[in-house]
Amino acid sequence: MRTQVAIIGAGPAGLLLGHILRRAGIDFVILEQKSREYVLGRIRAGVLEQGSVDILRDLDLDADLRERGLTHHGIYLQYESRRHHVDFLELVGRTVTIYGQQALVHHLLAEHDRFGSDVRFEVDAVLPHAIDSNDPYVTAIHAGEELRIHADFIVGADGYHGVCRPAIPGVSAYERSYPYAWLGILADVAPSTDDLIYALHPDGFAMHSMRSVEVSRLYLQVDPDESIDAWPDDRIWDALQERLGVPGWTLQQGPITEKSITPMRSFVASTLEHGRLFLAGDAGHIVPPTGAKGLNSAIGDVALLGRALIAQQGGDESQLRVYSGSALARQWKVQQFSQWMTELLHVDRRLAPSEAAFRYRSQVGRLEYTTASRHAEAALAEQYAGLPF
Amino acid sequence: MRTQVAIIGAGPAGLLLGHILRRAGIDFVILEQKSREYVLGRIRAGVLEQGSVDILRDLDLDADLRERGLTHHGIYLQYESRRHHVDFLELVGRTVTIYGQQALVHHLLAEHDRFGSDVRFEVDAVLPHAIDSNDPYVTAIHAGEELRIHADFIVGADGYHGVCRPAIPGVSAYERSYPYAWLGILADVAPSTDDLIYALHPDGFAMHSMRSVEVSRLYLQVDPDESIDAWPDDRIWDALQERLGVPGWTLQQGPITEKSITPMRSFVASTLEHGRLFLAGDAGHIVPPTGAKGLNSAIGDVALLGRALIAQQGGDESQLRVYSGSALARQWKVQQFSQWMTELLHVDRRLAPSEAAFRYRSQVGRLEYTTASRHAEAALAEQYAGLPF
Repeated sequence: MRTQVAIIGAGPAGLLLGHILRRAGIDFVILEQKSREYVLGRIRAGVLEQGSVDILRDLDLDADLRERGLTHHGIYLQYESRRHHVDFLELVGRTVTIYGQQALVHHLLAEHDRFGSDVRFEVDAVLPHAIDSNDPYVTAIHAGEELRIHADFIVGADGYHGVCRPAIPGVSAYERSYPYAWLGILADVAPSTDDLIYALHPDGFAMHSMRSVEVSRLYLQVDPDESIDAWPDDRIWDALQERLGVPGWTLQQGPITEKSITPMRSFVASTLEHGRLFLAGDAGHIVPPTGAKGLNSAIGDVALLGRALIAQQGGDESQLRVYSGSALARQWKVQQFSQWMTELLHVDRRLAPSEAAFRYRSQVGRLEYTTASRHAEAALAEQYAGLPF
Repeated sequence: MRTQVAIIGAGPAGLLLGHILRRAGIDFVILEQKSREYVLGRIRAGVLEQGSVDILRDLDLDADLRERGLTHHGIYLQYESRRHHVDFLELVGRTVTIYGQQALVHHLLAEHDRFGSDVRFEVDAVLPHAIDSNDPYVTAIHAGEELRIHADFIVGADGYHGVCRPAIPGVSAYERSYPYAWLGILADVAPSTDDLIYALHPDGFAMHSMRSVEVSRLYLQVDPDESIDAWPDDRIWDALQERLGVPGWTLQQGPITEKSITPMRSFVASTLEHGRLFLAGDAGHIVPPTGAKGLNSAIGDVALLGRALIAQQGGDESQLRVYSGSALARQWKVQQFSQWMTELLHVDRRLAPSEAAFRYRSQVGRLEYTTASRHAEAALAEQYAGLPF
C-alpha cells in the first residue's frame, strides 16, 4: 500500500499529527505496537501550556478540553512551611490548563474514529526502510499479515524506546540521569488546592496536582531504585502530609486508585531528521517531569512538523529542512528549564552531609530570591506557561 | 587597654567598619596579622555593585573611586562565538563600577592614617575571649608586647582562615567545592572591551575584566590541581585568544605582570554571631568569584553591622540581634546567584562524555533563553548589579 505520511506511534504526538494532516487533506496511516486499551490506559502528564491549548483549539480538537480542562492562573512554590503563589496571568498574561494526557489521547482517538482515519493497533515488527531515498517504506506485521507501506515521509512518534531513532545513521544522544524518581498516585478525592503545589522539603520533593475536580494526583520524590512495595498507602499519605503540610491547611485523603514509580531522565537526540524520516515527541527528547514539559514538547514538535509537511505538499520544502534545528533549539531551552525546576526542588541523598546541607540552604535561597523578585517570577512564569513555538 | 569595638582583620570589611564607627564617634582598634605591605599588595576582586558604591559615597570614602573607578552599564555573555550585551542600566536602572579591591583597601587605609585611627599590623596570636560575657577581650602580641584589649564588642573580619569563627561554640559550616579553578592574570595592555566579557567555551570558562583603562585582568578556567608552572605566558594568551575569540574582534596582548591560580569554594557559616562576637565578610562566607559577590558581600555585612552597632550605642540592641539572620538571608541569595553564574559558564571535566555533552548543550540552552528573555535578563541584571541591603 501507499500513503503520503506513515506515522509510527499512536501517542499524543502521532495522533495529533494525524489530525493536522487530515485537515490539510494529506493521506496518512498511524501504526501502533501496543493495543488500543493499553494506549487509552496510560496515565501520564497533565498540564498543557497556553500555546498547546491554542494549537488544539485551532485544530478544533478542544471540545473535551473546554468541558473538562481546568484553567489555572499559576502555581504554588512551597519551602520552609511557606507557600507562595506565582500568578502567571498577572506576571505574563498567560495561563495553563490541567487536562490529563489520557483524556487528550482518548479525544484524539475518538476524533480519528469519527473521521475514519487509518489508525492500526497491535502492529508488530515495525521498521522504517530506505529513508535516504525518494521511496521510503515501512514494513510491519498486522493481524497476521505482512505490511509494506510506501510513503513520501515517515514520522517516528514512537517514543524513547521506539525503532525510528535507531534507524538514523550516526545519531547520538545527549543524556543525563538523576538520583531521583517520582512516586505518583491518583486518589479519588477532591484536590485540596486550587493551583498545583510544588514543595521543597528536607525529606524530598512533593507535589499536589489534580486530574479533575474529583481526582487528585500527588507525587513524592523517592530514590530511583525504590520499590513500590515499600510504599503502602498509609506511608504515602504520611509522607505527603509531612512534605506538603503548612499551618492552617489540610490535605484531604481518599482511596488511592493507581500508584507507580517513574525514573527521571533528560535525553535529547542529536538530530530529529534523516532524509525522509522525522522524529517527534519522546522519540527525540525526554525531560524530567518537574516542569511539565514532556507532552507540551510533543505538541510543539508536531505543530512545527505538521506545518512543514503541509508546506512541502505545496512545493515549499524549506520548513521541513529547518524542522530539526528549530525543534531542537526550542527543546534545549525547555531542557534547561526542566532541569532548573528539578534541581530547585529535589533533595540529593548521595551528597555528604555538609554538601547536602549547603545544597538545601542554597535551594531555599533560590526560592526566596525567585519568590521575592518580580523579574525572576516572570521568567519562571513565561517558561512554565510556555515559550513561543 | 579598652575600646568600644575591637576589629580583627584589616581587609576591606574591617577597614570599612572602622570608618563607619569613626564617623559615629565610636572608639575602635583594628588588629591585623599580616604586614601593611602584604595587605596593600593583595590582588582580589574588582567589581562594585551600585549599592556598594552608594555606601562608600555616603561615608565620604569615594574620592579615589570617583576618580579611578570605571562605571559599566552591563556585561557581555558569550557562547558559541556569539557575544550578547546585557544592559543593566536599561533593564533595571542600575550600574556597576570597576574598581580593584586593592585600590579600595589603599584608600581606606590612607583615610585611617589621615584620621589617626588605631590600625595595627603584624599582630600575632590574636584571640577573642569571654565573648559570652559582658566583658569580652582580645589577647595578642604586637611589637614584642602582650596586648589585652577589653571591648564592648569584637568583630571578626579576619577571613576564611581567621581565628574568630572557630571561637564560636558549635558553629558549623555549609560548604561546597567545585571542580574548577581560575587562573588570573594582570596585563599591561588597554582592555579590548568596554564591558566585562563572560564566556562559555568547550575548553572552559574565560573572562575579560580590567583594572583601569591601561590594565587588563583576564581569567581562564583550569583544573583545581593545575600548577601555574604549566602555564607559560604564551599558553595563557593562546587559550584566551581561543576561548574569547569572536569574528571581527581582536584581543590585545601585553606584558603579564601577575599570574596566579585560585581555587573555588562556596562556604557559609551557620551563624555570624555569638554573644559579643560578630563575623563579617569572608570570615562568615565565601562565594566562587563568577558573580563578583565576595567584596560586595563584605561591604553589605559591615553596612548592616555598623548601623546595628551605632543603634546599640544609642540604646537599641534590636538591630544587632537580627544582624546574623539578615546578613545570612541575603548571603544565601548571593550564594545561589554565584553558583548559578558559575554552573552556567564552567565546563565540568569529570563527567562522562555523554553527560558532559548534555551539560554543555544545556548551558547553551540556558544562555540562549537568558539572552532572549527580557525577564531572565532583568533577573540576571538585578542580581549582578546588587540586591538591596
